Amino acid sequence: MRVFQIEGEWGLDNLRLSQRPQPQAGAGQVLVSMRASSLNFRDLVVPERGYGNYTGELPLIPISDGVGVVSAVGPGVTRVKVGDRVCPTYFQNWQGGEPDLQRLTQSLGGPIDGTMTETMCLSEQGVVVVPDYLSDLQAASLPCAALTAWSAVVTYGHVKAGDHVLVQGCGGVALFALQFAKCLGAHVTVISSTEDRMARAKALGADEVLNYREQPEWAKATRGFTQGRGYDLILELGGEKTLPQSLRCIRPGGTLAMIGILSGSSVNTSLGHIITRQVRLQGITVGHRDGMEAMLRAMAQHRIVPVVDKVFAFEELKEAMAYLKSGAQFGKVCVQH
Amino acid sequence: MRVFQIEGEWGLDNLRLSQRPQPQAGAGQVLVSMRASSLNFRDLVVPERGYGNYTGELPLIPISDGVGVVSAVGPGVTRVKVGDRVCPTYFQNWQGGEPDLQRLTQSLGGPIDGTMTETMCLSEQGVVVVPDYLSDLQAASLPCAALTAWSAVVTYGHVKAGDHVLVQGCGGVALFALQFAKCLGAHVTVISSTEDRMARAKALGADEVLNYREQPEWAKATRGFTQGRGYDLILELGGEKTLPQSLRCIRPGGTLAMIGILSGSSVNTSLGHIITRQVRLQGITVGHRDGMEAMLRAMAQHRIVPVVDKVFAFEELKEAMAYLKSGAQFGKVCVQH
Amino acid sequence: MRVFQIEGEWGLDNLRLSQRPQPQAGAGQVLVSMRASSLNFRDLVVPERGYGNYTGELPLIPISDGVGVVSAVGPGVTRVKVGDRVCPTYFQNWQGGEPDLQRLTQSLGGPIDGTMTETMCLSEQGVVVVPDYLSDLQAASLPCAALTAWSAVVTYGHVKAGDHVLVQGCGGVALFALQFAKCLGAHVTVISSTEDRMARAKALGADEVLNYREQPEWAKATRGFTQGRGYDLILELGGEKTLPQSLRCIRPGGTLAMIGILSGSSVNTSLGHIITRQVRLQGITVGHRDGMEAMLRAMAQHRIVPVVDKVFAFEELKEAMAYLKSGAQFGKVCVQH
Amino acid sequence: MRVFQIEGEWGLDNLRLSQRPQPQAGAGQVLVSMRASSLNFRDLVVPERGYGNYTGELPLIPISDGVGVVSAVGPGVTRVKVGDRVCPTYFQNWQGGEPDLQRLTQSLGGPIDGTMTETMCLSEQGVVVVPDYLSDLQAASLPCAALTAWSAVVTYGHVKAGDHVLVQGCGGVALFALQFAKCLGAHVTVISSTEDRMARAKALGADEVLNYREQPEWAKATRGFTQGRGYDLILELGGEKTLPQSLRCIRPGGTLAMIGILSGSSVNTSLGHIITRQVRLQGITVGHRDGMEAMLRAMAQHRIVPVVDKVFAFEELKEAMAYLKSGAQFGKVCVQH
Repeated sequence: MRVFQIEGEWGLDNLRLSQRPQPQAGAGQVLVSMRASSLNFRDLVVPERGYGNYTGELPLIPISDGVGVVSAVGPGVTRVKVGDRVCPTYFQNWQGGEPDLQRLTQSLGGPIDGTMTETMCLSEQGVVVVPDYLSDLQAASLPCAALTAWSAVVTYGHVKAGDHVLVQGCGGVALFALQFAKCLGAHVTVISSTEDRMARAKALGADEVLNYREQPEWAKATRGFTQGRGYDLILELGGEKTLPQSLRCIRPGGTLAMIGILSGSSVNTSLGHIITRQVRLQGITVGHRDGMEAMLRAMAQHRIVPVVDKVFAFEELKEAMAYLKSGAQFGKVCVQH
Repeated sequence: MRVFQIEGEWGLDNLRLSQRPQPQAGAGQVLVSMRASSLNFRDLVVPERGYGNYTGELPLIPISDGVGVVSAVGPGVTRVKVGDRVCPTYFQNWQGGEPDLQRLTQSLGGPIDGTMTETMCLSEQGVVVVPDYLSDLQAASLPCAALTAWSAVVTYGHVKAGDHVLVQGCGGVALFALQFAKCLGAHVTVISSTEDRMARAKALGADEVLNYREQPEWAKATRGFTQGRGYDLILELGGEKTLPQSLRCIRPGGTLAMIGILSGSSVNTSLGHIITRQVRLQGITVGHRDGMEAMLRAMAQHRIVPVVDKVFAFEELKEAMAYLKSGAQFGKVCVQH
Repeated sequence: MRVFQIEGEWGLDNLRLSQRPQPQAGAGQVLVSMRASSLNFRDLVVPERGYGNYTGELPLIPISDGVGVVSAVGPGVTRVKVGDRVCPTYFQNWQGGEPDLQRLTQSLGGPIDGTMTETMCLSEQGVVVVPDYLSDLQAASLPCAALTAWSAVVTYGHVKAGDHVLVQGCGGVALFALQFAKCLGAHVTVISSTEDRMARAKALGADEVLNYREQPEWAKATRGFTQGRGYDLILELGGEKTLPQSLRCIRPGGTLAMIGILSGSSVNTSLGHIITRQVRLQGITVGHRDGMEAMLRAMAQHRIVPVVDKVFAFEELKEAMAYLKSGAQFGKVCVQH
Repeated sequence: MRVFQIEGEWGLDNLRLSQRPQPQAGAGQVLVSMRASSLNFRDLVVPERGYGNYTGELPLIPISDGVGVVSAVGPGVTRVKVGDRVCPTYFQNWQGGEPDLQRLTQSLGGPIDGTMTETMCLSEQGVVVVPDYLSDLQAASLPCAALTAWSAVVTYGHVKAGDHVLVQGCGGVALFALQFAKCLGAHVTVISSTEDRMARAKALGADEVLNYREQPEWAKATRGFTQGRGYDLILELGGEKTLPQSLRCIRPGGTLAMIGILSGSSVNTSLGHIITRQVRLQGITVGHRDGMEAMLRAMAQHRIVPVVDKVFAFEELKEAMAYLKSGAQFGKVCVQH
């Protein structure tokens, strides 16, 4: 079968269209005939071995997110049946509960082979059935970005009606977080860098938007949106440049969901506010299968539609990755198999 | 009645033995005849207006921690009766639940008058009865340091038997945390800078001790104490110098209780670990009355005795403060009224 | 000032329009000039001493729920100011955290004097400011019924988007629960006994309605509304007749919020399901001030309007009580002062 | 290989020593060479099809609890290696998080084949490594009874130092609960029916013991052990006869862990207390793998030794079951393979 894989040496130059034998489903396993994939920033970093301690082996099929149809089931499989449309879970062994080292290291697209293949062979525990209302491209957009947003907003953020939530930017995670927080009844502020994106965030339900280029000291203005009370939850995606502002507009006892470090990972800030206002900084790294299933129930009820920006053909994976790298997208960059 | 108060201008130079009229208990209020006080680092900072946004008014009676006996009750009081021995709560309006701005700002010793007086007039909601087995000096040691430790270990740390806990140093909060974590069945590591303190921590129940002067890169060695799994909870008291080490030996999903910044408040570290290992940094600022009452039940059952280092007379408040500032103590510095 | 009070002996016959002296606000206290009250079933029971262990004293001003305007504040009051429109909290001493005996016994309308007076004198800790968009009658409807619903749905039920919630009947608590669960994004089923009420529940947002007179074995049909998964949360208001059905349609790990026992308090059921499906029965008794303030933020954001059924004049308290007893209302029965 | 299995028809009469072919480990699977088993009451009920909705198939190898050594691993196994001593988890698919129907139905000893075999073939996700300090018989005692106690005391009971816990009887779950609650620092009351058992509970650490035959209205006396505050957690094992007493000595806001119904499953009690004291009844059905691993860490640290009563040979399974049925044991009834 046809696959994309990194061969011989690490590096995007060694990512090639190649062939592998068709897998067989053992006890408790399922074969999934892949229909679509979706890209995340991590997919640009892993092939370059860009995480310091990354120790996967080659060859590696990249890309963590995708959707397909169950084409065969091994002995003893009960969770799904042939014909079910499923997403593989980002972490293959994290069903629920707290993270541990094993759960956080068994991720698709490295070290485990990812979605850029005709057929995946997975444990039945590593797939979730997706609702019918979603297209293949929309469903492929969910495993990493949407679940990260759900974990931040629901699993760890416990957002409820009347809470104030601030979302940084209009990337994949940010847009899902906006949509989820709105259907939970929260008041949502989005900060962005262009009027165009701000308008689109408004159209997706944002109660307040603010241009952080024009107001780099945005803590004071956004605090006003909360009648001075401060935010219950901030999705911290910027890192170096945003954290000091976030610490100034979070409410006492509030939570900063630490998700991304787009503006730099080296933080130079004062710890004073964290202590005296009893703030919580909660690292978020995707999430568990229980979260994904709860998220899909919520999405199905509210018919939440992921924002798909641009679609590439299977053979155009490198073009898709280059487009993602450009940062021009509003929503998800997808691959049609 | 005789009080210590900061008069005229801020600054320790303006802390003077003075006189105030005896208070009267209104509806829902109690008078407490003070017997002992105990000092915390904050008591050295407030008189100098050392917190940036500190906005209290003068004159101010300093010191947050103390114990006394109820000498009169106003109409409608039901929580306590004349003769009860009580500690005032550090935060006078935080009974339970989450913190908010109002709860975190109504603290004794600034902006509310503190314990260095003959008689305090307090809401009945702002005192807790202390167990008989504690001496006055021991009871006076509890409101700030012990409750901070309890909040970190129990209210937010949820420590249970079999958990691994790391405590930084042998200050007041650290020693209480060690004692509480042990009576909850945890495995406790203490890092300290002298052999003498390490030996005393051992005597108080520490399972492992380590000299961080000799091993400034202590993350690896302490991680070994947890069989490589990492710590469930670290009481982060050092700040600038300790945080990078703590982030290397916390387990995925573990909690850093952010309490103190003794080695500096300006942190320059990478956010990567917080995200990829899904770590939680939880600011801790003393705690609520519910926590204090739960703590006292646990202390009474286990006959936990606070470590009192040195006792000064009421008139010697300034000497007591100088001694605390020297950092020479092992345990609490107290004042006998 | 004019009050209603039970005088001499317990019993509704001894409920009389009477006079009391105008109160004065002491330290930390506020005077509230009452504008409206609202009735709950408990208000019919207390005057008859209908709770077995009820030990209040006479004379007693009845009725727990109301709204008024702060007309004076005592020394040291910071939470509210003259002119603020406030509701007294049902429990005067439960600010947040877990319940205890003291918190659960200091309730308005018995043993503490209630709202049927011109002016109430309360601790500043015992009032909450209400949003402007609510009329006096609407605001008066909130302290007991709405907060009970909020506690069940949010504080203890942790309802989130995509969850399935079942509400029994169309009483005061039930209608608030329906409205809150909808603004949190849940799927809500309401069971009722008349087509008229079912239609009105639909109009308030119910996703599914069912007539339990026509289908007394409603567990199976309602389970179908959840695609066989079962309910995440059931608001159990019926007691004797509904509990066995609820236990058949709750999901494994789900919660029954135990609120009312309208059909009888004596339960004869099997405990098997509770254990094997790991169900939680959570008693709910109104709630704390933190919950009330969070509820008001959610209501203000979503402009949730309480359903007021009928309004009586201050002098018509007995008529209002008789009307409530008749069970004919859809929504709250109120008194205009 | 040699197995015990129920053949042809349900019923203990059809439980026979028989033969099956040796299994092979597929991808992600392990073979476990069994060394010991341990019996629970459920093991007496399943063979008789004693649970109303029990729908397993025959032949069935009974008994859920045991220990063995990994003798082979299939492709891709990383959690364990050959030579590791492991317990199979009671629920084979519940790793962590909340229960659901699938997690609660995949249990060993029915419908999945149990431990009474020479070799088990299991998913690597369905075993946990046990500490060296435990003998085979002690380790075999843990999967059902000990984990049920841990779930009640820790996962759902959140017991901490200073809490009051009441345990009903001296059965397998009860003794584990006593031991766990003590190492968490709680104050523990045990009620039992004989002086001999009460003495042994005392020896295991019980702070208070009470003979419920002599004091069938034990609520009042035990309440005294809590200074009138009531119990934070009661392990409810009796059901019909004990629940009314438990509801009288639980504290407001406290938890009844619903585990067993030894004295009858049909409860006829008043719901009033549940509501007015905001009590929680929490069904407990064994627990998840995360709980088991946390429990084993706590046991290893505290060297907690399960109480083994009597040991039978593999061939004597029916005698072991008869002995368990007699109710004469104090501790676990085990089988040496």
